[in-house]
Amino acid sequence: MAKNDGFMTEALQEAEQAGSRGEIPVGAVLVMDGKILARSGNRTRAENDVTAHAEINVIREASRLLGQERLTGADLYVTLEPCAMCAAAISFARIRRLYYGAEDPKGGGVDHGGRFYAQPTCHHVPEVYSAIAERQAAELLKRFFQEKR
Amino acid sequence: MAKNDGFMTEALQEAEQAGSRGEIPVGAVLVMDGKILARSGNRTRAENDVTAHAEINVIREASRLLGQERLTGADLYVTLEPCAMCAAAISFARIRRLYYGAEDPKGGGVDHGGRFYAQPTCHHVPEVYSAIAERQAAELLKRFFQEKR
Repeated sequence: MAKNDGFMTEALQEAEQAGSRGEIPVGAVLVMDGKILARSGNRTRAENDVTAHAEINVIREASRLLGQERLTGADLYVTLEPCAMCAAAISFARIRRLYYGAEDPKGGGVDHGGRFYAQPTCHHVPEVYSAIAERQAAELLKRFFQEKR
Repeated sequence: MAKNDGFMTEALQEAEQAGSRGEIPVGAVLVMDGKILARSGNRTRAENDVTAHAEINVIREASRLLGQERLTGADLYVTLEPCAMCAAAISFARIRRLYYGAEDPKGGGVDHGGRFYAQPTCHHVPEVYSAIAERQAAELLKRFFQEKR
């Protein structure tokens, strides 16, 4: 298995764990120098915090661990296309590469909606790689919402 | 002085205090049932957290105080047009009205950039009132960046 797939597998585990806690199953890991520095699932319900998306959680945790705002050189793996909030935070944190799983035509802010990185005012644009382990990520979400109904 | 101006004056005080701490001078207050529930300036430097914009801080604080994710019925006053990250968080939190001061053609995500609330996929659109105490808010920012140079 390629290294990138390995990190996405870790993000998928975080997504699964989030789903089993009743959270929307999205997971993320933040990688620095080839190692996972922070990992999280969606925690909006657990923390009563609409900002506690997996991506925000790993950015905040990594910044706390490193004692710095910017995560230059870091790569972020997330199972779902980031929303506008997370896309902006990823840019603000100067993340180098964004790998995401499933597309999110309804809520995504990278390749859908406001397409944050395509705005001429966006100061830092990460390299974006989409459709990494897309099927597994989408399957997790589909199953979660089917069980909800 | 109109009531709305009063709340914006409180937000301006938070912005001033942020500036005196070396943070970009932006401030916000979150109002519920006519009372200020949470207030904050920008704290990105103090907390080494790119997500610690004034708006995110008051949303997280209010949610913590109320023990709920959604702040239905809350009004948010912020001295600068929210960025894409904050615009999305304001929508996710179901904030009723957004009052902002200065426009932000470079970083704003409400009336500039991705115009989050104008996206057909945006689930909750707050009422938006702009240019509240605009001159004072813009002046604070201008002075801050002049002194930096």
